[in-house]
Amino acid sequence: MEVKNWSDLWLSYSNKIGAGESSCTVMYDGFEPENRILKSAEKELFKGLSEVGTAVKFRRNEAVAKEGYNINGGKDITVIEASDENGALYGAFHLLRSLECGEDITELNVSKAPSNPLRMMNHWDNMDGSIERGYSGRSFFFEKDDIIINERTVDYARFMASIGINGVVINNVNVKWAATDLITIRFFDKLYELSEIFADYGIKLYLSLNFASPIELGGLDNCDPLDDQVIAWWKDKVKEVYDRLPNLGGFLVKADSEGRPGPFTYGRTQADGANMLGDVIAPYGGIIIWRCFVYNCTQDWRDTKTDRARAGYDYFKDLDGQYHDNVILQIKNGPMDFQIREPISPLIGGLTKTNQMLEVQIAQEYTGHQIDLCYLIPMFKEILGFKTYCQSENDTVADVVSGRAFGNKLAGMAAVINTGNDLNWTGNDLAAANLYGFGRLAYDTELTAEEIAREWVRLTFDLDKELEDKLVNMLLTSRETYEKYTSPLGIGWMVTPNTHYGPSVDGYEYSRWGTYHRADHFGIGVDRTDKGTGYAQQYYQPNADMYNDPKTCPENLLLFFHHIPYDWKLKSGQTLIQYIYDSHFEGYEEAKELQKSWKAFEGKVPQNVYNCVSHRFELQVANAHEWCDQVNSYFYRKSAVADEKGREIF
Amino acid sequence: MEVKNWSDLWLSYSNKIGAGESSCTVMYDGFEPENRILKSAEKELFKGLSEVGTAVKFRRNEAVAKEGYNINGGKDITVIEASDENGALYGAFHLLRSLECGEDITELNVSKAPSNPLRMMNHWDNMDGSIERGYSGRSFFFEKDDIIINERTVDYARFMASIGINGVVINNVNVKWAATDLITIRFFDKLYELSEIFADYGIKLYLSLNFASPIELGGLDNCDPLDDQVIAWWKDKVKEVYDRLPNLGGFLVKADSEGRPGPFTYGRTQADGANMLGDVIAPYGGIIIWRCFVYNCTQDWRDTKTDRARAGYDYFKDLDGQYHDNVILQIKNGPMDFQIREPISPLIGGLTKTNQMLEVQIAQEYTGHQIDLCYLIPMFKEILGFKTYCQSENDTVADVVSGRAFGNKLAGMAAVINTGNDLNWTGNDLAAANLYGFGRLAYDTELTAEEIAREWVRLTFDLDKELEDKLVNMLLTSRETYEKYTSPLGIGWMVTPNTHYGPSVDGYEYSRWGTYHRADHFGIGVDRTDKGTGYAQQYYQPNADMYNDPKTCPENLLLFFHHIPYDWKLKSGQTLIQYIYDSHFEGYEEAKELQKSWKAFEGKVPQNVYNCVSHRFELQVANAHEWCDQVNSYFYRKSAVADEKGREIF
Repeated sequence: MEVKNWSDLWLSYSNKIGAGESSCTVMYDGFEPENRILKSAEKELFKGLSEVGTAVKFRRNEAVAKEGYNINGGKDITVIEASDENGALYGAFHLLRSLECGEDITELNVSKAPSNPLRMMNHWDNMDGSIERGYSGRSFFFEKDDIIINERTVDYARFMASIGINGVVINNVNVKWAATDLITIRFFDKLYELSEIFADYGIKLYLSLNFASPIELGGLDNCDPLDDQVIAWWKDKVKEVYDRLPNLGGFLVKADSEGRPGPFTYGRTQADGANMLGDVIAPYGGIIIWRCFVYNCTQDWRDTKTDRARAGYDYFKDLDGQYHDNVILQIKNGPMDFQIREPISPLIGGLTKTNQMLEVQIAQEYTGHQIDLCYLIPMFKEILGFKTYCQSENDTVADVVSGRAFGNKLAGMAAVINTGNDLNWTGNDLAAANLYGFGRLAYDTELTAEEIAREWVRLTFDLDKELEDKLVNMLLTSRETYEKYTSPLGIGWMVTPNTHYGPSVDGYEYSRWGTYHRADHFGIGVDRTDKGTGYAQQYYQPNADMYNDPKTCPENLLLFFHHIPYDWKLKSGQTLIQYIYDSHFEGYEEAKELQKSWKAFEGKVPQNVYNCVSHRFELQVANAHEWCDQVNSYFYRKSAVADEKGREIF
Repeated sequence: MEVKNWSDLWLSYSNKIGAGESSCTVMYDGFEPENRILKSAEKELFKGLSEVGTAVKFRRNEAVAKEGYNINGGKDITVIEASDENGALYGAFHLLRSLECGEDITELNVSKAPSNPLRMMNHWDNMDGSIERGYSGRSFFFEKDDIIINERTVDYARFMASIGINGVVINNVNVKWAATDLITIRFFDKLYELSEIFADYGIKLYLSLNFASPIELGGLDNCDPLDDQVIAWWKDKVKEVYDRLPNLGGFLVKADSEGRPGPFTYGRTQADGANMLGDVIAPYGGIIIWRCFVYNCTQDWRDTKTDRARAGYDYFKDLDGQYHDNVILQIKNGPMDFQIREPISPLIGGLTKTNQMLEVQIAQEYTGHQIDLCYLIPMFKEILGFKTYCQSENDTVADVVSGRAFGNKLAGMAAVINTGNDLNWTGNDLAAANLYGFGRLAYDTELTAEEIAREWVRLTFDLDKELEDKLVNMLLTSRETYEKYTSPLGIGWMVTPNTHYGPSVDGYEYSRWGTYHRADHFGIGVDRTDKGTGYAQQYYQPNADMYNDPKTCPENLLLFFHHIPYDWKLKSGQTLIQYIYDSHFEGYEEAKELQKSWKAFEGKVPQNVYNCVSHRFELQVANAHEWCDQVNSYFYRKSAVADEKGREIF
């Protein structure tokens, strides 16, 4: 067997005394010791708790929330109560985490229930082993059009369970070529094996589905969701799939998006498409997760009426209430596409009679490719805390996507994951904070970004308090640093086309993607007010009015909602153009500060980690330098307004 | 055998009466009837001359120039005189061409000598079958890392011989991966077979060489051209190659360019590298063609001192006189890279003691991808006619690259070819005019662009005079049309990065490629005068002074040499900014005119040709539309100067 050479991430259990055999006692009260998930919990306790001295008892208590747990620490025995196996497993991980974080677990007294019923990871892994928007090597699920199962698969499941993930979509939602075959006999054995490994850790396997499968696999001439032959084909296919994969959670579908086929092709609605699949899969307890990423991706840049930001709401709002119970819409956090700053999608909470879940991206597609440090949990906290005014008493995004606002049973959060087969899993070791953080936050949306960062630092490294604080602070400020040297005030999209790394101010300006900044000699920004595209009106009041007026619009979204002259005075007293110059010079300086700060960690973290991260910071500084100079030069050349501070602009 | 379904291009012999067996008599006087090249000539006469009635006699006459011919037509017998077999073959093709063009061949009385000794095609075909900058399908020389030889190979050789080509480099000068193996035993048999087919048509096979072969094939740890082991390795290798490929013409080498290894890596000069290979290949009569495409391709866009345009001259001028006799430098026509308008490379004629040949590109990398119509012969005529003032009595580019100016025996012209395995060979049927035209021009630089266009039209189509004139006119104006809607006044590089099709005004502005327009609110252009990068000083007087002064600089190169304010008055009275607007609207209109003009050809050319070209014009109009609107919007947004004519700018 291959020597294990990959990172244990936050499960290194470095506080464990000795590396011997199990010596912690595990007892069961109401749980079956042989249950697969309890077995996993026990194995994990053996890894992390041996020679600590406390015994652990798993006790079934039906009063505990689904997948929740209570822990009562004690000198001799610590009791983990749960009403189901997942809760017991999560309790075990909580206990281990507390120990690693230096808490006195004999004093532990906690009660937890998950904020979100669905807590999912979406892999954009392709069957050839490549990963769309992957920055950490190749896929560990696929290579050469086949499925990989090895020791890392088990570790992956452990990591996911340890942060509360209960569903994983293993293949790219842009299903193409080979991946369509995942629902054929060729792959059932391996998928079954994978689903069993996942099941040991309370995780359901999901697959991304090609909506055109009736054509590509079935030989039919269409995939119209209302066509009887198509429906019959899906019924047979789904039966075949569930006969072989009884644990399958369901399917994720991206239809009618960026060139993918879908219901629109046949004059059907998105609801027609999703419901057909929902009905077919319902007898097996499966669900259909339907992505709302539908927009016109062949827009003419000259057209200032069409607004990509409007598309999600325009396409899906009218169908509110028409989706069947086992269908859930997965909605990106913003109306565009994972930019460093976007408003919240008005569809979230805009829909009141539809299952909905939040999609975020921890793969750093637009946020630095896991080269640049960008701890995203503060962004996710902002998103979750956003007050939608959706006519429910509980009206934040967290309330809506958890199901609390409208009483949905299907609800939750999904992240486009940032992993690959790099030995450290996430390319940049520090990017694991996003992987860890997303899971923790999805389980407990009340946690702060700082609490999560501190947990992750403590679990991952063995640092003194000063360095711990330093690293936590580096994480917490990193998103604003990245924002400062990239696109200003919510305008987004100034990235190099296709790769999405590095600056290209006009790169998406004359394109077909609906992504424009409309900068000219006098100003910049997109008018999305009632005098412009009207996008601001998709929000409930008072948000709609707030966004509609440049004086009340949050300044960090000013250019998303308004076309603003360069001499516009911001609240700071800076003009807009001076803000652009200042923030870019600042962001570049802060990137250099990050690099400098990291030097203090040499000898304090494993040398390979130090070296890897050092190299990333070097690249980040070069990137920030390019961004700073290109953006400033672009606006200086266009506006002809000099920097007040006389710094060098090219 | 496969049914021949590909185009005969300009060798369709549509004027041939009947399709029967040979009935023309061919006689020999001083030539060996069994000679392979004479056999080819005879076969060709049989294809094109049967039942015409004249007999043809090939007569050896040592007074005729190398590869030249005299033709004396006659009612009963037409005599083709030549001093060598290639001359005889070219004479036969001349006779056939005259017949096809409707001339009375019994009256023919011509005497021709080739302008250039080397007349070459460079294929950028890769071993996997892809073609770098190929717009006509895949390679017909390679697929799946193997060599293809079939009926098309023979037709290809016929086409080349018919226009006077006598050397072909079959593989991409960016030699990578598999192609390094071309000089190993794996490929000798097929290369031999290929070289024999070529030899039947008087064409020498050449190969592009990987300068790092001693490392990649030989297992040495370096490829330093002055290292004894390296030299010994090359001696053995070249002996092995010539033992198996006695007809090989030699090697084409791109070293120290765009990431390729070369002499610089070892602190050696370009001459060191070229001469070492030259010495090694000399005993076999081979030559080394050394490409002068060396520049810093990791430039910082902020750096206004470094000038890519200077690089060729700066790197190669000082080595003038140091190259051995069987080495020839291949110099691109302009100092940048095949833009629609560039000045002539000052290296041409700047070198006075070095063999040099001109490289042009008929693959339309920057000139419309064989979608947009762009007949390039007028550009090549301008290049050849440019007076270098190189201190020779004969001082035009044509004089220099033909060897006349400085008495070089090695001299000539090469084109990066525009062919692929499309059935029509060149993607757009009309792009074959460039393929035909380059060969004809290289053989006879005195031909006019119009003469060549008219020949090609007559040989390819069967049109009445009006349509013939129309098509000739479409060809002759097409380059200016393309120029109007793309980069203005010699500035170049406003293309989409990587693909090089379609507009992206800032696409190369902040890049590492040394390709900048430096546009700001006030003006545009690169200062290459003595106050700027000094590039203009690389020319002889009076060219240097002419380019140095914006008042005497040819206006179509104004922005190449000068940074000019938008309100600068051109000779037409237009301001620069108004010229940009006007020329772009005009170019777009002219593209629409081309499309409209082509409609007259329906039913007059084969339907598949009509359809193919119609589709290309449709795409060209869309492309011209994008160029027009993006360029105008870019400059309007930047300058804030309105169009005098009030047309729509976005």
